[in-house]
Amino acid sequence: MINWNNLDTLKSYNELKNAASVNLVEAMTGANGAERVKKYSVPMAAGLNYNYAAKEVDDNILSALAALADEAQLTDKYEALYNGEVINTGEKRMVLHQLTRGQLGKDVVADGVNKREFYVKEQKRIADFANKVHSGEIANAKGEKFTTVVQIGIGGSDLGPRAMYLALENWAKRTGNFKMEAKFISNVDPDDASAVLNSVDVAHSIFILVSKSGTTLETLTNESFVTDALKKAGLDASKHMIAVTSETSPLAKSDNYLEAFFMDDYIGGRYSSTSGVGGAVLSLAFGPDVFAQFLDGAAEEDKLATNKDFLKNPAMLDAMIGVYERNILGYDSTAVLPYSQGLSRFPAHLQQLDMESNGKSVNRFGEPINYVTGPVIFGEPGTNGQHSFYQLLHQGTDIIPLQFIGFKNSQLQNDVNIQDSTSQQKLCANVAAQIVAFACGKKDDNANKNFEGGRPSSIIIGDELNPKSLGALLAHFENKVMFQGFVWNINSFDQEGVQLGKVLAKKVLAHETDGALAEYSKLLNI
Amino acid sequence: MINWNNLDTLKSYNELKNAASVNLVEAMTGANGAERVKKYSVPMAAGLNYNYAAKEVDDNILSALAALADEAQLTDKYEALYNGEVINTGEKRMVLHQLTRGQLGKDVVADGVNKREFYVKEQKRIADFANKVHSGEIANAKGEKFTTVVQIGIGGSDLGPRAMYLALENWAKRTGNFKMEAKFISNVDPDDASAVLNSVDVAHSIFILVSKSGTTLETLTNESFVTDALKKAGLDASKHMIAVTSETSPLAKSDNYLEAFFMDDYIGGRYSSTSGVGGAVLSLAFGPDVFAQFLDGAAEEDKLATNKDFLKNPAMLDAMIGVYERNILGYDSTAVLPYSQGLSRFPAHLQQLDMESNGKSVNRFGEPINYVTGPVIFGEPGTNGQHSFYQLLHQGTDIIPLQFIGFKNSQLQNDVNIQDSTSQQKLCANVAAQIVAFACGKKDDNANKNFEGGRPSSIIIGDELNPKSLGALLAHFENKVMFQGFVWNINSFDQEGVQLGKVLAKKVLAHETDGALAEYSKLLNI
Repeated sequence: MINWNNLDTLKSYNELKNAASVNLVEAMTGANGAERVKKYSVPMAAGLNYNYAAKEVDDNILSALAALADEAQLTDKYEALYNGEVINTGEKRMVLHQLTRGQLGKDVVADGVNKREFYVKEQKRIADFANKVHSGEIANAKGEKFTTVVQIGIGGSDLGPRAMYLALENWAKRTGNFKMEAKFISNVDPDDASAVLNSVDVAHSIFILVSKSGTTLETLTNESFVTDALKKAGLDASKHMIAVTSETSPLAKSDNYLEAFFMDDYIGGRYSSTSGVGGAVLSLAFGPDVFAQFLDGAAEEDKLATNKDFLKNPAMLDAMIGVYERNILGYDSTAVLPYSQGLSRFPAHLQQLDMESNGKSVNRFGEPINYVTGPVIFGEPGTNGQHSFYQLLHQGTDIIPLQFIGFKNSQLQNDVNIQDSTSQQKLCANVAAQIVAFACGKKDDNANKNFEGGRPSSIIIGDELNPKSLGALLAHFENKVMFQGFVWNINSFDQEGVQLGKVLAKKVLAHETDGALAEYSKLLNI
Repeated sequence: MINWNNLDTLKSYNELKNAASVNLVEAMTGANGAERVKKYSVPMAAGLNYNYAAKEVDDNILSALAALADEAQLTDKYEALYNGEVINTGEKRMVLHQLTRGQLGKDVVADGVNKREFYVKEQKRIADFANKVHSGEIANAKGEKFTTVVQIGIGGSDLGPRAMYLALENWAKRTGNFKMEAKFISNVDPDDASAVLNSVDVAHSIFILVSKSGTTLETLTNESFVTDALKKAGLDASKHMIAVTSETSPLAKSDNYLEAFFMDDYIGGRYSSTSGVGGAVLSLAFGPDVFAQFLDGAAEEDKLATNKDFLKNPAMLDAMIGVYERNILGYDSTAVLPYSQGLSRFPAHLQQLDMESNGKSVNRFGEPINYVTGPVIFGEPGTNGQHSFYQLLHQGTDIIPLQFIGFKNSQLQNDVNIQDSTSQQKLCANVAAQIVAFACGKKDDNANKNFEGGRPSSIIIGDELNPKSLGALLAHFENKVMFQGFVWNINSFDQEGVQLGKVLAKKVLAHETDGALAEYSKLLNI
């Protein structure tokens, strides 16, 4: 029997409040610090490890967090989710993104269809299509191969797939898996579509229109930019464009597309990288086998998240430490700091994933709650961040928890040796140094050069950023966000907060405004 | 006589605490809201306007903020700065970035040199060099024109120039000012340099090595990536590379460079876009005339910041409203939301500018302070952000102040009309709608669809993003950050917080570690 209770009604939450806090400077200094680094570590899938030694936790706090995870029934709720319970209460939908990469529980059937079979069928259709494009069986009007794929989508149809593409581009180039260059059009700003179209050879480009509903205004607007460009080049747009959409959308059976691939209402946009939304562009760019490895990494990580042993469940640990930082320690934001250029847009994807899922003020029953929920998420790749906003992270007046990500090896494996070390060694040395600098600080009589320390971080370490480890990384954060939503008793799978802006924008375009909105419209010449 | 006092010692600050707060929903609803939009607006340079109607201020709060600005002697301090006083107390340096674009006060002389003349001389040298590259007088060994410029730098030598380049790229293409494509190498991650080098034709590329000290390890490491690539291509590296550095740096008189252009210690990295650091790459990419217009826009905005009339000084207004939000209302972060694809990396630049300048916990004399300083800054272009993290901004448990930026016209001026409006109109309609949605909210009996409102924002509106308006925009934020630093009585011009990480990274590379640092080094295979 699952109970959906608010965090502040849980007995173990009130116990957690009373647990003695950890002095991170003391904990991480000397032999004790070394012990913590060895001890507070848990394996993830694909050779990754989640290390939380530099978080403000100890065995006592971890026990209290385990008790809270238990009382909040996190594994039971996850089980209910992957078995097809209607977890998205706002929209009255199941939440099935994990099912796009594996089946953890019972068969899930909706409208008479086994959903796992449906997702696998679409993956296979996409794989066949991609193989035919790569072989030239599907080609342009002149019979020439397509060389570029352009995704048209916004939000979840853009950020995740784009971040994943960038994360694997260099790896694919080194390993011979690079099939087609991918570009992305998202913003309704006409300069976005125009600039991307100016940068590609449309005659050899295939476009993917991604919209679950088939009615996303930004995306349909950008589609017409593309069809205009194709027409101007004397090309038949319907031979250059495919759709990824739901079976019930107006795009599904349109003759405007070479082919349509399907997703459904049980895949939220921000969770759609492992569905056809990510599948089409990634399979075209890198081949279906690479996409399959990506799914395998995610599936393995999903499996780890079922572990009832708190200390062996990396996503749950990460989630609960985050709740402790947010609700007990009072930290308002979290920085995501990948020491990997390939992950340059991964923080932007996590920003959507986390903030759109858990930026809520009512519980899953629509009742107000009395505690804070999702934090602000931001980040840039290290070492760039070090030369930018790290000043505030080290010496600012607020404490910002940090999520580092690092890999032992680079993706292109091309390096130089300067001052007795490679660039990759310098990169890794920097992330190690930062963790300790943030945690331990350094006393200095000159207060301007003094570092208080006590600034918590965790790190995920892997051998290499490749399809499998990327899949595991993605699933880890998806599951972390899910667990936090469970603890906060909110619905992490709707996004009612985006609606009002849409309604008002339509009013502006219809010139049905008054008051302040009319004045702003004037200022902006609408 | 200037007094450098902590914020919490100022009489007007304590009065501000007692000022009645504004109910933003009420203030912005109906005719009153329309009045505010008309009234709470101030012209900036280059046709921009700063509108703060949707901020939680009224005439009473504004009077209190004006009194605080006055008591904190903001215009006097700015005057002292541009007249060459040693404002950067930590490093005992003058702060002269405004002097790179105009002279607001007295002649500033250092080491017997008139600094305005020095900056102008370097600008002219860069302009001559760029003109010769464009004409082909300076060419590669085969006498062929250079087509690409690659900047090698990190932090301030990267983020600002990169953001400015991206902001003008499309404008330059439309207006016939696009001379050379620019690329940027920054991260010490070897995948960054490798990928950029794989994407350019080195035989027709000119590289700009940017390091004030000439000792930045990341930058020197990336230099050797480039020299290796040039050598492999059978090219003489010294004929493909210029340096931007200080006259005393090891790079200044080296034979490794075709030419060296100079900056000095009075230009902080994050304030260096209008110095040779931005000047070389922007003059090569778009021509010296475009760079000169950019400087003009910045100079005009600098002049506006001298205005003693608080309500006619946009940077000071923006700064003081930010202080009110941070110190009185208790908001911890600020989102920067440009409705312009060209400004895609402008938030990342502001993130450095603001967080590195004002993320401090000691005052300018090195004494601890008892109030919060710089907030977290993050952002992405709208409309992309709307489909991502805006959920939290609308319905999350924390209030995040917002800084919108919008333009009436697009840069490429290529557009489509869908559902009776152009993309540019949709873009503008969205930003107008968002401001009102955030401020006014909308009551709904379904709490999940309810919008509390009361979420403050301001907007800077311009006709077009072009060199002049970009210069004005940049200077506005530089001056805002400067004024906030004055109010908080901190030194906004040093960055001691970046040092400890560097020291520890060196120890890791020298294998001089113990404790936690040694364990992390093992995990990362160093």
